Amino acid sequence: MKLRNIILMTASVAMTACSKQAVPTAIPEDAKIEQQVEKLLSEMDLDAKIGQMTELAIDVLGETINGEFQLDEAKLHKAIAEYKVGSFLNAPGPVAQSPEKWNEIIGRIQELSMKEIGIPCIYGLDQNHGTTYTLGGTLFPQNINMGAAFNPDLTYEAARVTAYETRAGNCPWTYSPTVDMARDPRWPRVWENYGEDCLVNAIMGSTAVRGFQGDDPNHIPADRIATSVKHYMGYCMPRTGKDRTPAYISVSELREKHFAPFKACVEAGALTIMVNSGSINGKPVHADRELLTQWLKEDLGWDGMLITDWADINNLYTREHVAANKKEAIEMAINAGIDMAMEPYDLNYCTLLKELVQEKRIPMSRIDDAVRRVLRLKFRLGLFDHPNTLLKDYPLFGSKEHALIALHAAEESEVLLKNKDHILPLPQGKKLLVTGPNANSMRCLNGGWSYSWQGHLTNRFADKYNTIYEAICNKFGAGNVRLEQGVTYKPEGAYMEENEPEIEKAVAAARNVDIIIACIGENSYCETPGNLSELAISANQSKLVKALAATGKPIILILNEGRPRIINELEPLADAVIDILLPGNYGGDALANILAGDVNPSAKMPYTYPRHEAALTTYDYRVSEEMDKMEGAYDYNAVVSVQWPFGYGLSYTTFEYSNFQTDKSSFTAGDDLHFSIDVTNTGKYAGKEVVMLFSSDLVASLTPENRRLRAFKKVELQPGETQTVTLSIKGSDLAFVNSDGQWVLEQGDFRMQCGNQVLTITYK
Amino acid sequence: MKLRNIILMTASVAMTACSKQAVPTAIPEDAKIEQQVEKLLSEMDLDAKIGQMTELAIDVLGETINGEFQLDEAKLHKAIAEYKVGSFLNAPGPVAQSPEKWNEIIGRIQELSMKEIGIPCIYGLDQNHGTTYTLGGTLFPQNINMGAAFNPDLTYEAARVTAYETRAGNCPWTYSPTVDMARDPRWPRVWENYGEDCLVNAIMGSTAVRGFQGDDPNHIPADRIATSVKHYMGYCMPRTGKDRTPAYISVSELREKHFAPFKACVEAGALTIMVNSGSINGKPVHADRELLTQWLKEDLGWDGMLITDWADINNLYTREHVAANKKEAIEMAINAGIDMAMEPYDLNYCTLLKELVQEKRIPMSRIDDAVRRVLRLKFRLGLFDHPNTLLKDYPLFGSKEHALIALHAAEESEVLLKNKDHILPLPQGKKLLVTGPNANSMRCLNGGWSYSWQGHLTNRFADKYNTIYEAICNKFGAGNVRLEQGVTYKPEGAYMEENEPEIEKAVAAARNVDIIIACIGENSYCETPGNLSELAISANQSKLVKALAATGKPIILILNEGRPRIINELEPLADAVIDILLPGNYGGDALANILAGDVNPSAKMPYTYPRHEAALTTYDYRVSEEMDKMEGAYDYNAVVSVQWPFGYGLSYTTFEYSNFQTDKSSFTAGDDLHFSIDVTNTGKYAGKEVVMLFSSDLVASLTPENRRLRAFKKVELQPGETQTVTLSIKGSDLAFVNSDGQWVLEQGDFRMQCGNQVLTITYK
Repeated sequence: MKLRNIILMTASVAMTACSKQAVPTAIPEDAKIEQQVEKLLSEMDLDAKIGQMTELAIDVLGETINGEFQLDEAKLHKAIAEYKVGSFLNAPGPVAQSPEKWNEIIGRIQELSMKEIGIPCIYGLDQNHGTTYTLGGTLFPQNINMGAAFNPDLTYEAARVTAYETRAGNCPWTYSPTVDMARDPRWPRVWENYGEDCLVNAIMGSTAVRGFQGDDPNHIPADRIATSVKHYMGYCMPRTGKDRTPAYISVSELREKHFAPFKACVEAGALTIMVNSGSINGKPVHADRELLTQWLKEDLGWDGMLITDWADINNLYTREHVAANKKEAIEMAINAGIDMAMEPYDLNYCTLLKELVQEKRIPMSRIDDAVRRVLRLKFRLGLFDHPNTLLKDYPLFGSKEHALIALHAAEESEVLLKNKDHILPLPQGKKLLVTGPNANSMRCLNGGWSYSWQGHLTNRFADKYNTIYEAICNKFGAGNVRLEQGVTYKPEGAYMEENEPEIEKAVAAARNVDIIIACIGENSYCETPGNLSELAISANQSKLVKALAATGKPIILILNEGRPRIINELEPLADAVIDILLPGNYGGDALANILAGDVNPSAKMPYTYPRHEAALTTYDYRVSEEMDKMEGAYDYNAVVSVQWPFGYGLSYTTFEYSNFQTDKSSFTAGDDLHFSIDVTNTGKYAGKEVVMLFSSDLVASLTPENRRLRAFKKVELQPGETQTVTLSIKGSDLAFVNSDGQWVLEQGDFRMQCGNQVLTITYK
Repeated sequence: MKLRNIILMTASVAMTACSKQAVPTAIPEDAKIEQQVEKLLSEMDLDAKIGQMTELAIDVLGETINGEFQLDEAKLHKAIAEYKVGSFLNAPGPVAQSPEKWNEIIGRIQELSMKEIGIPCIYGLDQNHGTTYTLGGTLFPQNINMGAAFNPDLTYEAARVTAYETRAGNCPWTYSPTVDMARDPRWPRVWENYGEDCLVNAIMGSTAVRGFQGDDPNHIPADRIATSVKHYMGYCMPRTGKDRTPAYISVSELREKHFAPFKACVEAGALTIMVNSGSINGKPVHADRELLTQWLKEDLGWDGMLITDWADINNLYTREHVAANKKEAIEMAINAGIDMAMEPYDLNYCTLLKELVQEKRIPMSRIDDAVRRVLRLKFRLGLFDHPNTLLKDYPLFGSKEHALIALHAAEESEVLLKNKDHILPLPQGKKLLVTGPNANSMRCLNGGWSYSWQGHLTNRFADKYNTIYEAICNKFGAGNVRLEQGVTYKPEGAYMEENEPEIEKAVAAARNVDIIIACIGENSYCETPGNLSELAISANQSKLVKALAATGKPIILILNEGRPRIINELEPLADAVIDILLPGNYGGDALANILAGDVNPSAKMPYTYPRHEAALTTYDYRVSEEMDKMEGAYDYNAVVSVQWPFGYGLSYTTFEYSNFQTDKSSFTAGDDLHFSIDVTNTGKYAGKEVVMLFSSDLVASLTPENRRLRAFKKVELQPGETQTVTLSIKGSDLAFVNSDGQWVLEQGDFRMQCGNQVLTITYK
């Protein structure tokens, strides 16, 4: 057996530990709110309670006439007066509406809710990278870019602005942030979260929660909104890579990595959480009482509200076959811990739920618990006192001030991956060809969750913003810039649809320029329609770049994609590569600023960029993934080769690391460990550097990971400047979760790494 | 919660259930052997005991001089007389030796072992598809072919012959059969087992055990050998697809699917089992006491011997980093339940193990248990009475009789996948081009574990057998057959190495023939050196087939590969496709017989053949993998598309199914359920059909699988003939393992399917 002692961490020591003993509530209890909730609950009949547990889609309340959505009073009456439905969601269509329209729609719903139920409605929208569903609002880079920026301040600002602009449309609730992690590049939701690492997702997710909600979750001000952290949990790595299909995750990995961002968000005050549509180890999460009630509500002492994802109670019988019918599905989900069903269409849900209570298949105590959580949320949001917010009170909606934040976020999130012979920044006066399917598309820059679910209508709505081509024209002079795309997407089609290529036209245009800027990647998509069967970049795009390279002109390769499409044959043909990911409405401008050298790139890869279809991994692989040569007859030599590792990213300047030190070369679980390192800008440009602290557990009772990110800080340095950067962790941060699902810190050595500097510390 | 009752099956009811209560030994105890073991054990000192727990590679006993291995008496003395090592393995090189040479080598080892230790040595060889390491013996199709044949009689015969021929070389023990399952097509060991299904592996593996060992595991006759079933367990689906890297498997899947073949082999009397080199859920299996000691030895009451794979105790510290040094690694592995270490080079293992016992870090009881298991094995093999077997007593070694069995197995294992307009069988007299890198190579036909580990020397040793080209010449007349390969492998290089292609030569040759027979796939490999980074067929081979197709001549595509390389762009270009897998030394002859219509193909795909790199799945996917269209705004539409499903395979005749019936439309766990179906040969050729019985659990508390194979039978039918085929299962066979690792049978309906016939049965 294991020789080294194993310390089971207690809840008080381990920030990240989960204890089964009673814990204080994650959000401090507000006595007045609890009193109000209890009083109201005591006055409600079963129908009223069930109505509060129900959320319907806006489509059930009206219809689109002459291109405009109109509420239908009869439908409104049925849902609100008759069924007492307490929540609605989504944009009609779903397509973004003007803030005025939102004021009108939600205002009428609130009016009727207060009159007929006496309880305000809570309306929810997927405002996923800014105001997805509010026309004229600010669209920020997607979360994957916010992860690449490694700058929590930007994440906070983006969430704060999104909250403000969402309130301008009279909506108090968003289904954000997404902290699922990008651990399988095939998965179509890679771009919705902050990258492959759990710490980055925990930090960025909890920062976004504070940005959306403010600092007091019991009293959300009128310029902030409630979050719904999603998708709880283990959603990100279905075995096949396809959305909403079965995942197989060990309890160790589940608790240590997948749970961590949700725990951090709960500790930051997240008011609601949305559940993973898929299954883990064969069990649909919507039916998993252990994960929903025990881990989340009981172990964390979380009094927030748990909502399903779209139609996911129905999916328990229609897709997952764990229930024989809808009634059984409702019984499973509510008993497992679901508080509100995103039904989203069928009022029979209410009828069946009522029957289940009457038949005692769902205890009244569970119903009361769920309704308390819904009411508590509405009180915390102040909706009883102020059911509505009005556009006129939000003068900064869609303002220049907000635009600048979005631009800055884009600039810090575009990753320079190659810069041969310092071809970048580009001097003025060169003749440029801008080519490729992503060269002139606002749809491509924004990705999904932009004006519509699939983001396929963005070119209609974002015309006033600059595409890559337009931004480059603005920066380098239209006379110097030629657009010939060679390959184009079908404008509003499915994401993989391309028109008949015209590669020869692009090649002809290339012959008359100095430099080719080839913009390739993906068109926008979202969720299951974004599934793929090959991770390689499209054949047309590959042909285009190869044909352009054959001209001998230097190529700047711009990657604009929701996930890392394989380009191992194209990378060697490019002199420079920038992965702009999905940078939003100001992503073209940001790129032009980087190309011209007005901005020095400072982003790092938020995930491992694979080189081959069948060589997918993450930076925190177990050491046994990479094997040394073996002695003797049988040489087991397995090495995974990647295109770019997690954390990789270049700058126009260079940074040197020295003098890596710690105040505790020997530590215990409760210690604070401080690491300091001198970082020097040794180049000619001012620049920002992400200083990252990694740990490696040298020997552990589960095969340890090669490295784990433990802390990071982004600093700005002038040429020649040296800063001493301090990064701090707790001793207990170096614990891991063992096979039994327990956090343990094992005695032994840890190798700490920062830049090219290494030191060893010991837990004794 | 779940509405339907759940019946926890008791051990007496569930054939496949695991109970923690004491169970009778899997192999009936033989009082005399136990007495002998105890007596001998009581006379042994610690050094002698440790020697019995040690296995070294043959290389430590000598060296190769002028191309021939020579034992070194000093080395022999050190290992056997001084360290009392009780087991040796492997061919020197490792390259196959003549049976005479094996008689000499093992004879001398036995002589010295009896003299110096008084206990016979047990020598082990990887005789993996016949006599891998015995020159002149019979090589059968690889196990993946035996799976495709769906004919246990052939599996039995192959094992029986292999045992006989292995004994001819004085070796009593093979590291076979492999029952890991082929559940990830990227994995380089796909071809070593019987396909993706656990039932097929359980039936074929246990049949092979009986073929190797005979029917009385306590008394292995002189023409049979001990098996080592491998690799226990969960080895087959590392997350990255790379050999010996971490796998993540739920307890449900582990017990229900991965454990099943091992359990079946234990029940068939398997005398030894080899352990999985990798880790499951972060824990290296060699250090997993629960899996090694509890599940296997205690729960099954198995008194056999557990051996490591190559150097895997060392790997606990060198690769897995769960031990800080070799001594700690030995402590972990032996305490976890390892009985014998395939060390394979370092005698310091013995010294360290002795220290661990003296320091009481390994209890003496564990040592005695391990040694008992080693001694019991040697007694069961009769080695004390007859330490040696002699070539002269095995007149059928490498005989024509054995060759015919191998030929027949190859004929039944080559899968006809496409036969447009009945282009096959081919008439005599046509001009044929045989092309492609696999067209003229015995190495390709055999795959790995053929004369050497990587199988790279096969063309040297198997010259007398017919390649595809040679067999086609024999069958259709050399004058009608032209060989122009277009693409060739480097003769003895790594498997993926190809020479500069000469596609234009093949295309030119194609212009002068009637039909092209394009033989593509993979060269031989084994284990980690067979890792890949792209599952697509090689670019050269793809170009070759496309260029040949452009000639307009019909193409018969022959796939000869260890795993399913993606060919979705080539399949539409072919008029016929036959996947011959790795059919061994008679595979070319078998193919010629099929092409000419002398043999009617009857094999079925033993795994799901993928169509795309990022669309890998198995036939027994959970129903949530494939989704129906969803109502409303969000249409989650995910469908996995495959090239050919598990169980697919054509014949030159056609079969019709009718009159599907069962004697129990309502059943309980203990019931025997009999299903009968009429199968009619409706075509013009006599042929064999694999009749398969599938079940679908319609609703279950874990998302159920789409289908599960429950029984199969291969029958032969003359044209026009109808047979009533009966397939029987136990009611408890329809149970599954839940999240807690328990076997459960849940009330409800099961859809049973046979051919195109369906009926529903109900567990009440």
